[in-house]
Amino acid sequence: MSDPVRITVLGTGRIGAMHAELIARRIDGAEVAGVFDVHAPAAQAVGAELGVPVYDTLEAALEGPGDAVCIATSTDTHVAVMQAAARAGRAIFCEKPISLDVAQVDAGLAAVDEAGVLLQIGFNRRFDPSHKAVADAVAAGTVGAPQIVRITSRDPEPPPISYIEVSGGIFNDMTIHDFDMARYVTGSDVVEVFATGAVLVDPAIGAAGDIDTAVITMWHENGAITTIDNSRQAVYGYDQRVEVFGSAGLVASDNPSVNSTTLRTSSGITGSVMPYFFIERYEQSYVDQWDAFVAAFRSGGASPVSGRDGRAPLVIGMAAKRSFEEHRPVRIDEID
Amino acid sequence: MSDPVRITVLGTGRIGAMHAELIARRIDGAEVAGVFDVHAPAAQAVGAELGVPVYDTLEAALEGPGDAVCIATSTDTHVAVMQAAARAGRAIFCEKPISLDVAQVDAGLAAVDEAGVLLQIGFNRRFDPSHKAVADAVAAGTVGAPQIVRITSRDPEPPPISYIEVSGGIFNDMTIHDFDMARYVTGSDVVEVFATGAVLVDPAIGAAGDIDTAVITMWHENGAITTIDNSRQAVYGYDQRVEVFGSAGLVASDNPSVNSTTLRTSSGITGSVMPYFFIERYEQSYVDQWDAFVAAFRSGGASPVSGRDGRAPLVIGMAAKRSFEEHRPVRIDEID
Amino acid sequence: MSDPVRITVLGTGRIGAMHAELIARRIDGAEVAGVFDVHAPAAQAVGAELGVPVYDTLEAALEGPGDAVCIATSTDTHVAVMQAAARAGRAIFCEKPISLDVAQVDAGLAAVDEAGVLLQIGFNRRFDPSHKAVADAVAAGTVGAPQIVRITSRDPEPPPISYIEVSGGIFNDMTIHDFDMARYVTGSDVVEVFATGAVLVDPAIGAAGDIDTAVITMWHENGAITTIDNSRQAVYGYDQRVEVFGSAGLVASDNPSVNSTTLRTSSGITGSVMPYFFIERYEQSYVDQWDAFVAAFRSGGASPVSGRDGRAPLVIGMAAKRSFEEHRPVRIDEID
Amino acid sequence: MSDPVRITVLGTGRIGAMHAELIARRIDGAEVAGVFDVHAPAAQAVGAELGVPVYDTLEAALEGPGDAVCIATSTDTHVAVMQAAARAGRAIFCEKPISLDVAQVDAGLAAVDEAGVLLQIGFNRRFDPSHKAVADAVAAGTVGAPQIVRITSRDPEPPPISYIEVSGGIFNDMTIHDFDMARYVTGSDVVEVFATGAVLVDPAIGAAGDIDTAVITMWHENGAITTIDNSRQAVYGYDQRVEVFGSAGLVASDNPSVNSTTLRTSSGITGSVMPYFFIERYEQSYVDQWDAFVAAFRSGGASPVSGRDGRAPLVIGMAAKRSFEEHRPVRIDEID
Repeated sequence: MSDPVRITVLGTGRIGAMHAELIARRIDGAEVAGVFDVHAPAAQAVGAELGVPVYDTLEAALEGPGDAVCIATSTDTHVAVMQAAARAGRAIFCEKPISLDVAQVDAGLAAVDEAGVLLQIGFNRRFDPSHKAVADAVAAGTVGAPQIVRITSRDPEPPPISYIEVSGGIFNDMTIHDFDMARYVTGSDVVEVFATGAVLVDPAIGAAGDIDTAVITMWHENGAITTIDNSRQAVYGYDQRVEVFGSAGLVASDNPSVNSTTLRTSSGITGSVMPYFFIERYEQSYVDQWDAFVAAFRSGGASPVSGRDGRAPLVIGMAAKRSFEEHRPVRIDEID
Repeated sequence: MSDPVRITVLGTGRIGAMHAELIARRIDGAEVAGVFDVHAPAAQAVGAELGVPVYDTLEAALEGPGDAVCIATSTDTHVAVMQAAARAGRAIFCEKPISLDVAQVDAGLAAVDEAGVLLQIGFNRRFDPSHKAVADAVAAGTVGAPQIVRITSRDPEPPPISYIEVSGGIFNDMTIHDFDMARYVTGSDVVEVFATGAVLVDPAIGAAGDIDTAVITMWHENGAITTIDNSRQAVYGYDQRVEVFGSAGLVASDNPSVNSTTLRTSSGITGSVMPYFFIERYEQSYVDQWDAFVAAFRSGGASPVSGRDGRAPLVIGMAAKRSFEEHRPVRIDEID
Repeated sequence: MSDPVRITVLGTGRIGAMHAELIARRIDGAEVAGVFDVHAPAAQAVGAELGVPVYDTLEAALEGPGDAVCIATSTDTHVAVMQAAARAGRAIFCEKPISLDVAQVDAGLAAVDEAGVLLQIGFNRRFDPSHKAVADAVAAGTVGAPQIVRITSRDPEPPPISYIEVSGGIFNDMTIHDFDMARYVTGSDVVEVFATGAVLVDPAIGAAGDIDTAVITMWHENGAITTIDNSRQAVYGYDQRVEVFGSAGLVASDNPSVNSTTLRTSSGITGSVMPYFFIERYEQSYVDQWDAFVAAFRSGGASPVSGRDGRAPLVIGMAAKRSFEEHRPVRIDEID
Repeated sequence: MSDPVRITVLGTGRIGAMHAELIARRIDGAEVAGVFDVHAPAAQAVGAELGVPVYDTLEAALEGPGDAVCIATSTDTHVAVMQAAARAGRAIFCEKPISLDVAQVDAGLAAVDEAGVLLQIGFNRRFDPSHKAVADAVAAGTVGAPQIVRITSRDPEPPPISYIEVSGGIFNDMTIHDFDMARYVTGSDVVEVFATGAVLVDPAIGAAGDIDTAVITMWHENGAITTIDNSRQAVYGYDQRVEVFGSAGLVASDNPSVNSTTLRTSSGITGSVMPYFFIERYEQSYVDQWDAFVAAFRSGGASPVSGRDGRAPLVIGMAAKRSFEEHRPVRIDEID
């Protein structure tokens, strides 16, 4: 077996620590080469638990041994870290979003292109076995030409208002995953968006300048039409469904259940709840996206989630925001 | 037991003949009092099979014995027949649409109001046990305040182009059921519509001036947002689903299966196809709407599907058409 | 279209009246030629409702016009009526069981053979679309050689004790359907039985000399092993499942639901109850068995449920009873 | 947080290595204190991968630091290791079966009792979330008094004939899990067994003196009757289902799917395959049984799977074997 891919984890907050632990324990053929965080104790805790080097500075981390980096620092630093890692010749896994600023995104992608390194964006839902089976079926032609896509994406409960205030709004924070999913399952870019929504869950979300319920229509290059709905609060759980209707059939990923047990009483039949939230629901996808990264690194093949895939949803989100504000369909080429 | 409700069936084409047979054979407490059709042999055939009087003229049919009429004549005659039946003091079951002209609809409803007779519109899908269970759950407050409604309504195959040409367009012909369904399951009127669509199934449908794929967003008075999708051709069958997401949960009616048999082989698990089309899928609803008519007649209570319920989808359809043509959201009060 | 098959209904108790109504209203190509019951008012009521001749005696009924008879008289008269109908050259539909006495059964079948008329036994469950799909898949070889059959058959509530006392015991009254189902879905005779059971539902059933819970193992000629379980009371409803496991897969018919609506709340997912009891659950099968009878009559082909099919479960039931009493496996050839 | 529970893994074959890796990587609050195997290279490989001490002898392993042991040596050494570990005062996790010899089992359990240490037997299926939900519902009284239990347990493919030859026969090798499951979900001991079976999968299994298809009936102390079916080869996958029918309802664990994606085409609806075999199907249960062990160790509470639970299925298996050979029901007290 070949040597493991040595991955330095940059940023060890909640999501970075999760990546470090996954790489160390669940990913065959990869190891954590070291960790760094601007908040040193966070890095030290992860380093101690996994028994790996802890770096004091980003520069030191990029000078240490390693093949690749996992960028899980705060969003506003992603591009600078990406540029430094690209210059250091490291393959790059970068958490989404690359940046909230398109010009910044472009600067980051340019650095990656120039260095010729692998870049994979952390749209983990693409690796969910159920959603992936949808995309694979479409790509294989099993349902023919895609015509109508339905995506339901609802959280079990809203984040704190303090988070809402800095989230960039529901389209950038929540629907961004669905914008990516629509491109992924259809294999086609989005050309126009119509977004609407309302404050139906919590007036405090409205007071913070956001909405908590959204319904979006999108037109794809290949003629397909996508409809997405979002809510910040589904009391029955994290509702994540994707379906593609095409000229030859329908393929749909439904919600999994915590168990496969049913109860029949005189009241009817009852099944189990769904996995609570993204950590539980998408656990496998977090593992599988790292396996895909390792495979792409080794093969030198194309990134499974490219920089372009990271950029597109950001632009769609901007168009969606304008559409919502102006209550009219907005073409992507108005924005970009 | 009380005497049966005597129902004269006016119009004995395919749907009228179906109603006559249902009333005669499946509806307890009702009987066919006689039949009439402008095409006399059609009426004679049904009359002979059921052993009931056949009338030569509408006037004769309304002078014969009877408590109620079933209006299943051609759409352009509905209002005139409705006016005559109302004047004759008959309770009225009228097939949808009442008319394609709002002024005509209003004239018909005025005659009914003046006569004070029962009027029930043939939106049979409201009586489908699965969709009804959705509406009942919402009405009972089981899912809290409705927030997002999703309706999927796809036909197994397109009608002949000759039919498309006179259908009034997909919104009036096909989506009209979904406009009604959205009002029914939310219990709330529609205030604005955004409709889009495309020709993805058959270019001949486009050549006939119509579209075959539609996605519609609607805003309700109570704040709920409905999204509908339609296709003239789902190769896997007649896809009819309704779901209401609310503050306290989700209630959804999925497609039934022809049988409850599954097959497991090395390829996976396979279930049965769906009932073919509306006659098979909605058989029970056709029976149940007559039971509801008989019950309303006997109790003197409110109509389960009122004239107002018959009128509203027509106006929504007009707004949808304008929205599609002008590619912008259209408020109902622009139309009506 | 050819002339309708004229069927005289003999015995118009609950089940006979149901057959008469089905034939008159739901079966294309058949009509009720007349009715007879030893209790004249019962026959008159059905005759009046359907507008068909009422006969005072069995002899008169068999002398009247007609092609076939439906024998729905009391079980102890089945054989005598069958013999008379056979002599009259009528095709015969006979409710199950033919008789509780094997010698009597043989006498009846001999008369039918001699007359060369069609005989179909009323094992309606064979015509249930879901169970039939199981049998069809096995017959088509889709699941390979049958190896293990599982049949669950549980009633929603026990019959009155007065019924239990004259029922002939759970094996003859309830399991007899499952004995037939096992033969039907495997296409293979039973050679040995092991039956056990207990009184777990109601001590009064035990006091009446019967059991209310049974588990039966059966060995088939083709090597398959069937396991059946019965209960007189499943509080969640009429539980009717059949599955055949074979060398190439598994085919299973599960319980249908009253509707296809599900509810998701914070407690999980809830589906609907099952159809209440045999009239609701097996409604379609009652229609389809008459269609099959008409088709066999017209084609002159083999009976879909032959006299031999009517006799076999009776013998299996006798073996099961002995097995239960002696707590040991009993071979069919010990009995027959 | 308290110190981790230090677990020495004895035996590092396939299953022992799996336990070592789980403890090291997936179990919070536990760590691998060291490893030992009679085949030194096996222990060294695991020790090197996990970075833990490797012991040359059992004695050394039990003298090293540690709180508990995982016994995953060959079955015939289980009891001797258990006795040594008990004398050393270690809490014990022991793979099933404790031994194939009841006297040996009793000797091992006596040593554990005398030392007063925790003993947990590796019946991991009890920790499967779906089966556990069945047992929990029964224990909570949700389905009332258990009356009929159905267990289906079929492997995706037979093991090599060389394995069959030393397996102890299908009842001890395969059904033993189901004997345990029946006791677990009913909470009641087994008093009598009737076992039958056949060679339907592969004649070579018959030539090796075993059967490959089995159907077992069992009577429980509390009156419930269990029926189990086994096959060495279900071509559609690892079929693992458990259901308990009781006076107040039915609770059932069905097979999970690899994903929650369905495909609808003109042929019907297709779902995914099941997890391949026990490693995939029962992955979570392997994790959860260690969490339960750690919890029991810390709390000093009762073992979730006691020595008595380890012994009972062995005796039931002996009774089943005799029942099969003598073709009659066999009471447990004939054996034990």
